[in-house]
Formats: sequence, C-alpha cells, structure tokens
Amino acid sequence: MPASPSLPPRPEPGRLPFAAPADLAERLAATRAATLRLIAPLSEEDCQVQSMDDASPAKWHLAHTTWLFETFVLEAFEPGFMPFDADYRMLFNSYYHAIGPQHARPRRGLVTRPSLREVLRYRADVDARVLRLLERSDGPPQLRQLVWLGVQHEQQHQELLLTDILHLLSCHPCPAQAVYAPDAPQPALADPALRADLAFEGGLVRIGHAGDGFAFDNESPVHKVWLEPFVLRNQLVSETEWLEFVLDGGYRQVRWWLSAGWDWVQRLGIAAPAYWRQRKDGAWVRFSLRGEVPLSDQAPVVHISLYEAAAYSAWLAHRTGASWRLPTEAEWEHAVLARPDALQQVDDAAWQWTQSAYLPYPGFRPWDGPVQEYNGKFMAEQMVLRGGSCATPAGHARVSYRNFFPAGARWQFSGLRLAR
Amino acid sequence: MPASPSLPPRPEPGRLPFAAPADLAERLAATRAATLRLIAPLSEEDCQVQSMDDASPAKWHLAHTTWLFETFVLEAFEPGFMPFDADYRMLFNSYYHAIGPQHARPRRGLVTRPSLREVLRYRADVDARVLRLLERSDGPPQLRQLVWLGVQHEQQHQELLLTDILHLLSCHPCPAQAVYAPDAPQPALADPALRADLAFEGGLVRIGHAGDGFAFDNESPVHKVWLEPFVLRNQLVSETEWLEFVLDGGYRQVRWWLSAGWDWVQRLGIAAPAYWRQRKDGAWVRFSLRGEVPLSDQAPVVHISLYEAAAYSAWLAHRTGASWRLPTEAEWEHAVLARPDALQQVDDAAWQWTQSAYLPYPGFRPWDGPVQEYNGKFMAEQMVLRGGSCATPAGHARVSYRNFFPAGARWQFSGLRLAR
Amino acid sequence: MPASPSLPPRPEPGRLPFAAPADLAERLAATRAATLRLIAPLSEEDCQVQSMDDASPAKWHLAHTTWLFETFVLEAFEPGFMPFDADYRMLFNSYYHAIGPQHARPRRGLVTRPSLREVLRYRADVDARVLRLLERSDGPPQLRQLVWLGVQHEQQHQELLLTDILHLLSCHPCPAQAVYAPDAPQPALADPALRADLAFEGGLVRIGHAGDGFAFDNESPVHKVWLEPFVLRNQLVSETEWLEFVLDGGYRQVRWWLSAGWDWVQRLGIAAPAYWRQRKDGAWVRFSLRGEVPLSDQAPVVHISLYEAAAYSAWLAHRTGASWRLPTEAEWEHAVLARPDALQQVDDAAWQWTQSAYLPYPGFRPWDGPVQEYNGKFMAEQMVLRGGSCATPAGHARVSYRNFFPAGARWQFSGLRLAR
Amino acid sequence: MPASPSLPPRPEPGRLPFAAPADLAERLAATRAATLRLIAPLSEEDCQVQSMDDASPAKWHLAHTTWLFETFVLEAFEPGFMPFDADYRMLFNSYYHAIGPQHARPRRGLVTRPSLREVLRYRADVDARVLRLLERSDGPPQLRQLVWLGVQHEQQHQELLLTDILHLLSCHPCPAQAVYAPDAPQPALADPALRADLAFEGGLVRIGHAGDGFAFDNESPVHKVWLEPFVLRNQLVSETEWLEFVLDGGYRQVRWWLSAGWDWVQRLGIAAPAYWRQRKDGAWVRFSLRGEVPLSDQAPVVHISLYEAAAYSAWLAHRTGASWRLPTEAEWEHAVLARPDALQQVDDAAWQWTQSAYLPYPGFRPWDGPVQEYNGKFMAEQMVLRGGSCATPAGHARVSYRNFFPAGARWQFSGLRLAR
Repeated sequence: MPASPSLPPRPEPGRLPFAAPADLAERLAATRAATLRLIAPLSEEDCQVQSMDDASPAKWHLAHTTWLFETFVLEAFEPGFMPFDADYRMLFNSYYHAIGPQHARPRRGLVTRPSLREVLRYRADVDARVLRLLERSDGPPQLRQLVWLGVQHEQQHQELLLTDILHLLSCHPCPAQAVYAPDAPQPALADPALRADLAFEGGLVRIGHAGDGFAFDNESPVHKVWLEPFVLRNQLVSETEWLEFVLDGGYRQVRWWLSAGWDWVQRLGIAAPAYWRQRKDGAWVRFSLRGEVPLSDQAPVVHISLYEAAAYSAWLAHRTGASWRLPTEAEWEHAVLARPDALQQVDDAAWQWTQSAYLPYPGFRPWDGPVQEYNGKFMAEQMVLRGGSCATPAGHARVSYRNFFPAGARWQFSGLRLAR
Repeated sequence: MPASPSLPPRPEPGRLPFAAPADLAERLAATRAATLRLIAPLSEEDCQVQSMDDASPAKWHLAHTTWLFETFVLEAFEPGFMPFDADYRMLFNSYYHAIGPQHARPRRGLVTRPSLREVLRYRADVDARVLRLLERSDGPPQLRQLVWLGVQHEQQHQELLLTDILHLLSCHPCPAQAVYAPDAPQPALADPALRADLAFEGGLVRIGHAGDGFAFDNESPVHKVWLEPFVLRNQLVSETEWLEFVLDGGYRQVRWWLSAGWDWVQRLGIAAPAYWRQRKDGAWVRFSLRGEVPLSDQAPVVHISLYEAAAYSAWLAHRTGASWRLPTEAEWEHAVLARPDALQQVDDAAWQWTQSAYLPYPGFRPWDGPVQEYNGKFMAEQMVLRGGSCATPAGHARVSYRNFFPAGARWQFSGLRLAR
Repeated sequence: MPASPSLPPRPEPGRLPFAAPADLAERLAATRAATLRLIAPLSEEDCQVQSMDDASPAKWHLAHTTWLFETFVLEAFEPGFMPFDADYRMLFNSYYHAIGPQHARPRRGLVTRPSLREVLRYRADVDARVLRLLERSDGPPQLRQLVWLGVQHEQQHQELLLTDILHLLSCHPCPAQAVYAPDAPQPALADPALRADLAFEGGLVRIGHAGDGFAFDNESPVHKVWLEPFVLRNQLVSETEWLEFVLDGGYRQVRWWLSAGWDWVQRLGIAAPAYWRQRKDGAWVRFSLRGEVPLSDQAPVVHISLYEAAAYSAWLAHRTGASWRLPTEAEWEHAVLARPDALQQVDDAAWQWTQSAYLPYPGFRPWDGPVQEYNGKFMAEQMVLRGGSCATPAGHARVSYRNFFPAGARWQFSGLRLAR
Repeated sequence: MPASPSLPPRPEPGRLPFAAPADLAERLAATRAATLRLIAPLSEEDCQVQSMDDASPAKWHLAHTTWLFETFVLEAFEPGFMPFDADYRMLFNSYYHAIGPQHARPRRGLVTRPSLREVLRYRADVDARVLRLLERSDGPPQLRQLVWLGVQHEQQHQELLLTDILHLLSCHPCPAQAVYAPDAPQPALADPALRADLAFEGGLVRIGHAGDGFAFDNESPVHKVWLEPFVLRNQLVSETEWLEFVLDGGYRQVRWWLSAGWDWVQRLGIAAPAYWRQRKDGAWVRFSLRGEVPLSDQAPVVHISLYEAAAYSAWLAHRTGASWRLPTEAEWEHAVLARPDALQQVDDAAWQWTQSAYLPYPGFRPWDGPVQEYNGKFMAEQMVLRGGSCATPAGHARVSYRNFFPAGARWQFSGLRLAR
C-alpha cells in the first residue's frame, strides 16, 4: 500500500555498519521506559521550560526521540504510514535538513502545544507501532539497525534531559524549591588515599572503533597514532583540590588562562565552576539534582569548561614544577585499553575534557542516508570529552566514544583527568 | 499579636485620595473569579511560558496580583501575619523597590516552582484571609482603599494576561494549534457607513480626574489646557483602510515615517501590523485569541505601534490634503466629555495612541506609601493611549484614564483614532 | 544652460517663512571662517575619527555643512551646475531621503578619502561659488533664504563639532595627551552668593516664534499655553551642588530615579556626570576641552542626562521638602520673556533639560521642499532642552529655540535649571 | 647605571632556542625600512582608522612593532634606559600581561595622539638606540636574539598591516576612491593547464622545526606523526573554479556546510568570498589593494573562511565522487618537504586552510620570559593555515610555519589547497 501522495518522499535509509542485538525489542522497551522514569519527579511546568538556547525542554526531548523513531523507522518501513500529527515532522526535527524544515532551536520552549500529556500519547503510539514492526519477520536489516540507533539516540537524550533540567532548576532564585530528586544520580566518588599517577610508554597505537557492535560514525575508522610516553592520573581532580585553585585566586590571575578563556572569564564574570556558591556562612556548596550539597575531596569537580580545565592544569604545573596538562583523546583511549583496571572514575563520574579538537579521523566517512547529518557536520570549534558521567545510561558509553562540546560549555557533567 | 521579629517591617500604607465602594467584598470576589475564568482554556504549559521580556507568564500574573493583596493588605493589616511562602515576597514582586528585591523580569518564565496548582492554592488562601479582614468592622480606611486598589490592579493584569497569552500563542509555528478560545474577546465593530468627522471648538478646558471615585494618581490633578479647534474621527481606522496603506507600499516608503520609526521598521523587518499574515492564497488574516480571522472593514486595526499610527496619518494626509494626525490626550479627553454619544469604539475596541508623551500633569504628586512607585517612575519615553480595548474588563476604564507604552509596542490592542 | 541629463532632478526649494539679512554674504563668510578656526588645534587624525555612533568626525562636519550649500543652493540655483565630486552627494548626505541615499551614520569614521586637505578644497570651492551666486542680483528669494538656512545649519554643526571632539578626546586613556586648546570655551560661571528663586504667575501665555526673523520650523506656530504659577532658579545647578548628590550616594539609590533611568544607571555603570573622574588624591575633576579642570561652585554641572537631572531634582525635593523638578519648555520660555535680566546662565553655560517631550506645536507644519526633513521627523522619543551653551555660536540661539536629545544623551553641554 | 626607581622592574628576557644572524643590524634596518615603504601610499587618515575589532590601525602597527623593540630590547639592555614616552608602554602593548596593562584592542582606533608624525619620530629614535646597542660587543646573546625576534615580529605585522588596510579600504562605499597602490602585491598566479594531483605514501613522518635557525615556539618540538596515504593538488583552487560553486548555489544549500558554517552564512548573509562583488553588468570582481580586478582562472581564490573551504570541498567531492577535503597540517608539511618542486603557490599566493586545529605539539613548551605569551595562549578555537601569501615578506615563512585564525576569519589572504 503506497504512501499518500501528499506526503513527502520516504527517507531512504542507506547502509549502516553495525548489527542490532537479538533482544532488540526488549532493549527498546526498557530504554523508552527509562526515559519516562526520568521525568517522574517533574511537573508539566518543569518539562516545558527552555532555560537557555543550548538546552531543550524535557518535553521536547520526549517528543524528539519519538520523532526519530517515527521518521527514520515508521515512515521508512511501516506499510501505509500515516503520521501521528503532521505538524510534528517540523516541530520535533532537531537538525536534519534532509528531512525538512525545523523549528528554531532557541524557540523550543515557546511550543506549549502539544502538552506533556499529548506527547506521552505520542510516545505510546509510536512505541506500539515500532514494536509491531519488529514482531514481523520480513523487515530489511536496516529496520532493526535504525531501531537500534534510535535506542542509542534516546540514551544520549536521557543524559541531556538530566543536564538540561539541572540547568533549569539552577536558574531558580530559591535553591531549596528546586530539587529534582533526593536520590538523583551523583558523580562516582574516589578515595583520595588511592590517588596515583600511571605511566604509559606510547608508541604506534591503534585508536577507534572496530567490529560490528554499535558505535557512532565519528569513532571510525580504526587508525594508527604515534604517542610519546605520558602519565595519566588514576582519578579525576576533586572538588577540594579545585577549591584550592579558587581560593588561591586562580580565576583572577590572567597568567593561567588561555587568551579566549580569559575573555570568557571576564565577559561572564566567572569565579568558580558552574553551580558552585559560597554560602553566607562561608561554606561552599554545589547545586545538584539533589539540591545543594557540600564540596568533597572524594567527589570529582564537575561543570567546568575546557578553559577552566586548562587554567587549573597551568596553575598546578606552576606549583608542582611538573608539566600537567589535559590528555589527548588518543592518550586517553590508549590508557583505558592498556590499563582498564588501574583507572578510576572512567565513565561513572564526569566526562573528561581532552586537548583534542573534535575533528574527523583519517578516512572518516559519515553514515549513509539521512543519518549522515548525525555527527559529521559538527566537526568544527568543539573539543572532545571522553569517558562518561553519572548521567550516562549504563551500557551506553564505550572506550572509543567521542563526546564533544564547545570550550566554554559547563552544563554537562564535565571534569578533568590530568596528564603530563 | 506582633509579627515575627525576623520579618521585614510592615509597609506603611500612607494616605490615598479615593474611597472604596460599599460592596467591596463582592467586587473583590467577582474580580478574582473573573481572573480564573481567563485561564480556564489554558494548560499548565500555556500558563508557564514567557514569550518575550515585555510579557509575563499567566501563572506570574495569577501570583503577582495575589502578592499585592498579601503584601499591601495582609502584611499591613492582618494581626499575626505570616506569609503563605516567604520566598514569594521576592519571587512575585514586580517593581516595588521599597518592598524589597525582585526576581528579574526577563527571568519570570524560568520559575517553574511553585506550580500552577500551588499558585491557585496561594490565591485561595489570600482571598479567604482578605475577605475575613474585610468582614471585621474595625479596620482603618486604608485597608479598604488598598483592597480596592488591588481590585483595580487585578483588572489591569487581566488585560495583560490576555495580551501576553496572545503573544505566546502567536509564537507557535502552527497557528491552528494555538487557539485560545473560540469565544474570546474581539474588538468591537463599527459600521463603515456611519463613519464621520466631528468638529470641536477647543478653548480653555479642564482635563483630569476629580472627585473621590477611584482613579490612578497619574490622572490628577485636574488642570486647565488650552485647545485650538480640532476634528476627531468618530470611528477607529479599520483593517480594510489599513490594508490599503500596506498595499500602497506604506511600509517601504521612508517619507511617511518618523526617523525612529523608520529605524524600527528596518531593524525588525516590519511590513504590516503585528499578527497579520498573507496566506498563500493571497488573503490577509489576523491571528487573534480565536485563531486566524479574515480582515474586515468593520473591525479596527489593532496591534499597531505609535510609529505605524504616525506613518499612516502622514500617508493619509498626503492623499487627502487634510492634515491628519494623532490626537493629543487633552483633545481626546475633551472630545469624549463633550460628545459622549457621538464617538464610537471609545473603550471596547482598541486603545488609541495619542501624540502626547506620558508625563506628569502640572502639580502631579504620586500616592503616598509603597504604592508611590505605581505610576510616576514610568514617566519617561512612553506615549499615552486613551480609551480601552476589548480586553479591558468592563467598568475598569474612565475618560481620564491614561494608558502608556513605548512607541514601538504592538502586543496590546492598540489602534488609531484620527484627528486633524 | 541645462544640467547634464545624467544628474538627478534638481531639488525644488519650496517656500520658506523667513527673510535673509541684508549682509548675508558677510555672515556666510564669517561663519565659514569660524568653522575653520574650530579645527585649527586638530590634526588630520583628530578630524578623522568617529568615537561613537552618535558623534561624527570633525572632517564629516566640515564636508556635510558644505554639502548642504552645494546641494540645496548650488544644485538648485547655479546655472550649469556640476558637482565638485559626484560621490559626495551620497557620502555627505546626513539624513535627507528626498535627496537620495546616504552613507550609514555609524560608518562615517571609515571614510578616510577624501582627506581633510581635499575637504578643505571642497569648502573653498563651494564657498566661492555660493558667493558668486549671491553677487548676482537676479536670484529668487529662496536662494538667499537657503543660504541663510545654511549659515544657521553650519552654526549648529559648530557646536556638534566641539562636543564630538570632546567625546573623542575623552576616550584617550591619557587625559594629558588629549587637550583640545587651553583657551577653549568653558561654561559661563555664576556667583553662588547671588543664587535666588524667581516666582512667576503663569496664566494663558503665548509661546513660540513669530515674525520673519529666522527660526526653525519646530518653533512655530505661536500658540497659547495655560501655566499654573511656578518658581524658577535664577542660576543653573553648580558642580559643587551636584557633587553633594554624588557623595550622598545618589547614583546608588533607586528611589530617586525614573525606572528607565535606573535601568540606564545599572546597565552602563553610571556613577557621576560624564567626564567626571575622582583622582587618586581624592579630588574630583572634569575632563573638558581644556583638559582636566577641578570642580567649582561657580561652574554649572554639564554633561548630565535627563535621567540624572530628574534624579537630582527628586533627591533635592526630598531633602528640602519643596517639590523641585525640571521646568516645562513653556515655563522656561515664558520666564525668559518675562524676566530677561533676572535669569543667569541662560544661553552661555549649558542647555537646560526640560520635562517636555519634543513634540509638534499645535498646528505645526514642516518647511516645504527637501528641508521638510530638517526637524519634524525627529519628533519622537526625545526631550527638549532650552537656552544655549558655551559651545553655541554667539547669536545663534533664541528664546524660542528648541534643542532636543534622547533622555540618556550626555555628550552635549547639558545642565539643569530647577523649577517647582 | 641603574634604571630610575620609578620605572617598573626590567623584563627578564629568559633563554631562547634560536641564534641571530651575523648581519643582524642590516636585517633590522632593512625590515624597518620596508615597513615605512608599506605606508608610503597612505594618508594620516588612512593610517588612523580601525575598521573592525579584529584589525588594527596602520599607525598602531608602526608603533606597536617599535614598542616591542623598546620594551623587550632597550628596557632590558640599554644602560640608563628612559622611555620615549611613558604612556606608550600601555598604549602600544598588544597583549603582554606580564609587561603590564594594555589599551583595549577594539579602542585602538580612538587614539589620535600621538599623531602619525610623532610615531615616525618614535620609530627613528628606537631604531637608532637599538642599532647603537648592537654596535657594542659586550651584550648578552639574548639581546641579539630578541632583536631578531623583533624583526620576525615586524614582518608578521607587515602582512597584517596590508590585510588591515585592505579591510579598511573595502569599507569605503566608492571602490574607485579606495585604491591602495596600482602595484600592490597580488597572489601569485598558476597555469590552469598544469593543474595536477600528487600522491604521497605517508607512514611515520617527522614534523616540526629543528635546528637553531629562527622558528616560533609553536613549531616545536619535532615529533612523529603517522600519515595514511594521501593526495594533494599541486595548485590552489582558482577564482574561476570557485565561481562555479557560487553559481551552482553553493552558498544557499545547507548540505555542503558544517553546522557552524551554515549558522555563519545565515547570520552574516554570506554569498561569496570576502571582497567579491557582482557588477551591474553581471561581471564579478574582487576588491584588492589595486582596486577592483576581474576574477581569473590563474588567480587563487583568497579571503575565504575555513567554513567556505570545507563547503567547497564537500560540494566538489559530491560532484566528482572523490573524497576531497582539506589537508591536515602534517600532510601539508610532509608534502612540501617530500616534493618541494612539485607544489605551486606554496607561499606566494595564499595561506592554505588545514583541517587541523591550532593545538600544542606533543611536548610543546612556550618560550621563557615575557615572550612566553607570544603564541601558546592562543591555542584554542583557531585553525591552522600553512604556507604564506603574497603579503608575507620574502624570507619570513618556513615549511614548519603555523599561521592560525578562527574558522570564520576572511580578511587574510586565505585560500584552499585540496587534499583527499
């Protein structure tokens, strides 16, 4: 049965280099259910508001992840496909020009209709239809690949939903009114007594993703990189260590800062990591998804920009006489592959800034089809972060995973693992 | 029973020059109920969002009007006053520096907590307490005066709530999804066959409010103004008349525009009144609280800036050879007093821009007490509008009423009554 | 001999309501020479730079005033007119859309060619040609009227040239390097011992310009205004008086300020009049055309905005219990007509802010012809200043003269005469 | 003889890793004279104006290059050093926080004093004093090293002076009035008939500067990089080739652009390389230092951003089916070392964008002393360009030279050498 003539042409899925798991339907259902658990503590109002251009409303995350299944899976494979609501094709398209026009990103928070309730209906409808498709045996392999991609994509948005909500709640002038949940995820702790530096020999190493397990296109191809010997800290820099930098005047001394970083500090009046505040009683606290919590030497510093990471490294290098710096992404990946057990807080505490710009690997080719726009077009003016955070869904990250943000971004769970 | 020592000192109410009506409690209850009817068609999401710095969320209007009763009435007069929520004193203070700090206006939309439901509880609680106070016989006269002021204030916000919601809904990329209500207020119509010009002799006339009925401080004192003879149109300029200006290229010809108006047109790409759109089939429509409606020669043009009003007048003057212009506010007030039955669409269609700047009357004195900040401090860089609109609650406006907005504001129901 | 066919059509001069003086040629020559004396202390560099959007380079003033003679006089009346340089028609047109396109105002400082030397050649050429035209006896009256207008216009730009240069020099980080001239104009002083308040009865008075002496169109027509009794200070507020306001924290207390004024203070970090600075030794100085000079009780405060004038008045009213405020322009004009000898510092110290918006007088009609754009189109969002300043050429101002600037402008010699 | 006690402490020069040439004094004199030749066609006005924040006035270049000799050479080594003018230490400091405060970069054009004439006196005075120092035999090696660094620095500013002047002149609304010089440098041409692609095998190659010849710190240390096989075009993309991209709608099709590039195109309304214009007769021209010149297939496209370079490559890859892209800086450097004669337009046409971010080489250490700020602190958010341009002084560039600009910069002579 052909699609209605007034519909746009079906997106052609293209070939994808990974295989979907056997228990795909269960994985799909579990991931979709996990998203709903994330918004359980939130009101309609909490889910509606967009607190800055870079963030999206929780409601939008709920709808956009559904849109991806509807557009890339149902529209491409469902016989007699009819959209849940024709307006959604534009309203919840993030940035896929090949699919069609998009609602402007900074105006996502103005879309009060559909309501949260209606978006939840949309989710249920699409879920049921995708599961029905998966139950049939005669689909092409791309169908299952795209569903699997949709699951990975939803997991990415689970993390963004949490960091965007944290940003929104942090805008409330009364922190006590703005708690997300008392048992919300917090960065994994580490024992300061076990802090240590690990040495690596380097040489000609292999970096990047291989095999037919899922990975994003930006993790490929596997390629060789020459590494000089280097040292990596086994833990992330802690909040207490960072406080010393603050108290030493680190944010007021130009000498530690990259030029663009100093401009950023001056322009925005930055004086500490995001969400840090000194109480009237002198104590420093961090606003978190659990509300304000005291700083700790076991907790990694989070919500720092690359500029701050670089400034801290320069300050520490000056104090210690050792050439502390950020690792490159190749150093990071090689270290994790080489000493998987020696490194702590790899993917459960904070994403770790690297000194590598987000650029294509040698021989990089984007995926085929409309998902071509997924990663490649963002390879400019961003820096790579590696690892994973307390907000990353379990099982989502990989050693070859490349996260990326502009050097001034701070609303993610971003931290620092020192190298020299 | 004294207030708790940790509370700020009670605001001193000061003396006010108007009397409250005998049926004050009924008026209060009716006005508060009318506000709730306005939000009946809206979801929690609709009530949360702030679509521009100049507008406020509907939820904020609900809370702020309540705050005024709580702060100026309960806190001043209720024995043993305890705030409903101590945070609200700052959260819902609009601009009263004498009361204390305020949450920044452009960030009102970020306050997702309290929720709409909680704000409705706040309203009910304060209503009950104010009514209880009014039932006692021993209150000072200021108590009743301030309640009466609170009613007038709430009526002002009823109009703003509608114009702010209209602005929010107009931001939705799909107009059909953004209807407020099919029976929402629309500007009063007029019969084009009855259009006429009325002549007035002028002379030394009296302007301003007298007596002890309610009026804002900016309407006083009564004073003399010398008027030359003038002519006023009995109806407002219609949408069809305005369309002729649009189609004649009026928005592209610098000669009709004030210099600041032309800058405004160029900078913002203005080409028609706010909320006007030409459909693909060529027809022009206006987005309204009822959704998109066709233009009409019976309906007044609304949502125009003073710049547009002045440009239209200059264009019409050129075409007709008559010196059409905006009226002064003294001409307008004198005309309504002199020929109350001859003028149509006075206060039920659109506020009418005047060519008078919003400045103090000779001998003006602001009210005493914290309400001193109500009007006087805004007497700079705004223009006076007279009359009333379809969104103005019945009984709220007066012939001496002075509304005021910057010359470029368009989201109110603002129109044009021609003078020469 | 006809103009070349490729030239645009000659501007039609229109009818003007004033007469030129008998010694017009002498007046022209003297005024043009006076302009050259103003730039004598300046280098090519000083004459080139535009220090803010509101200001113009001195070189531009030299060229634009010449352009007005070339365009409105030579092009309209000179047989066989050929432009000095065809590009200048656009380059030095300020804002006359009827004449043709203009170079964007904020980009005037980017025009390094023609050089100052070439602009001086342009001046000499146009001067000679205009004088030649004036020597003939057969010109129409408009020719002489437009030359006379050109002289008045040049005098206006003489004042602007000085205030624009003062602003540029004030941007230099080393004040001692940025002196204009040791004998530059300074505001007229007044003896504090003679400070006094003058009472006026008001009533129905006449305001505006009459007769066929020169006046701008915005000063007409003469019209009646009703004035209540009022009091005017015979001198301007002095620097020492103003310093008391500064030291009393006047710029940090919101209660004295108009709402828009407080926004302005906060946004720009205003803490004193423009060009004031507290030296490291604690002394306050004002940067002037003569360099930094100490404050004085004989010198009027200058370089204040309307916001500051209004805040000072409110502060003083609070301290004295008298209702000090700014005068209206009608009060000001009537007072000067009524008591010409009792008022000091009328037109030789600082322009005096009024509380009147710059709006058309009743029955106002702009001049005919291209000079129609001279004044009328600026009648929005500006406030009237009356009197004259130390930078106003002798003989230029009149009692009916209406100067106008936005409420936040400070780079003119603007001061305050108190009223109540 | 000690420096005067009121002077700041002498900058400590630190150790530098390069040797000065034997004919240092001649090199210095020749370079300083070459700078003066560059401004010979310019007026005082041309030398004064700053046309955008990123550019500097020619007069500032003249003074700042002199300041570097005065501060880093004379102040450090001249017995009894007295500054030419104490204010210059701040006025002409570009970005050396270790030296002291700086005049804000975007305000350089406001400094009309000293005049050009005075700056030329400053140059002559410092030149004479430096040469006198060089004549003595007993100076430390750092003295000669810093003079040699000053020469290199002056050469960098010679190129900037030309590109900044080109930008200023391009702002003139009448291009014919804005010619720099009829014999000004133009990008080297190439014969389209000789266009060819060169293949390289890659492998583990050495990159970076070695030896004691002059190089900037950012070119060190030499290090190994693994390269996959790659192909490089022997010529730069020509203007005619680029015009095809323009005419094919390349600037209007989102599919070719990086996401940040598309934002940039939309925000700034970019539709062609900088300084390109389509004449009314349909012909395309480029505004150059010689005025407007027609496009050519022999001339390289210049004044393109990295965004444009990347978009052109994507467009070409799509048309040809070959994976055209920008080279990495390691590929570029290796190719020039490997096939020095096969590559054309290496350093005499246009700087060539690479796909490498400007980041530290492994083991990078900034120079010692105040020149530590020379390069390292800019290693964020910039992209590397390699080669040299027609505006680069002869002998200045090297194969290891790393130029760097933000991805959106276009006012340099920046072009594209294709790789795949």
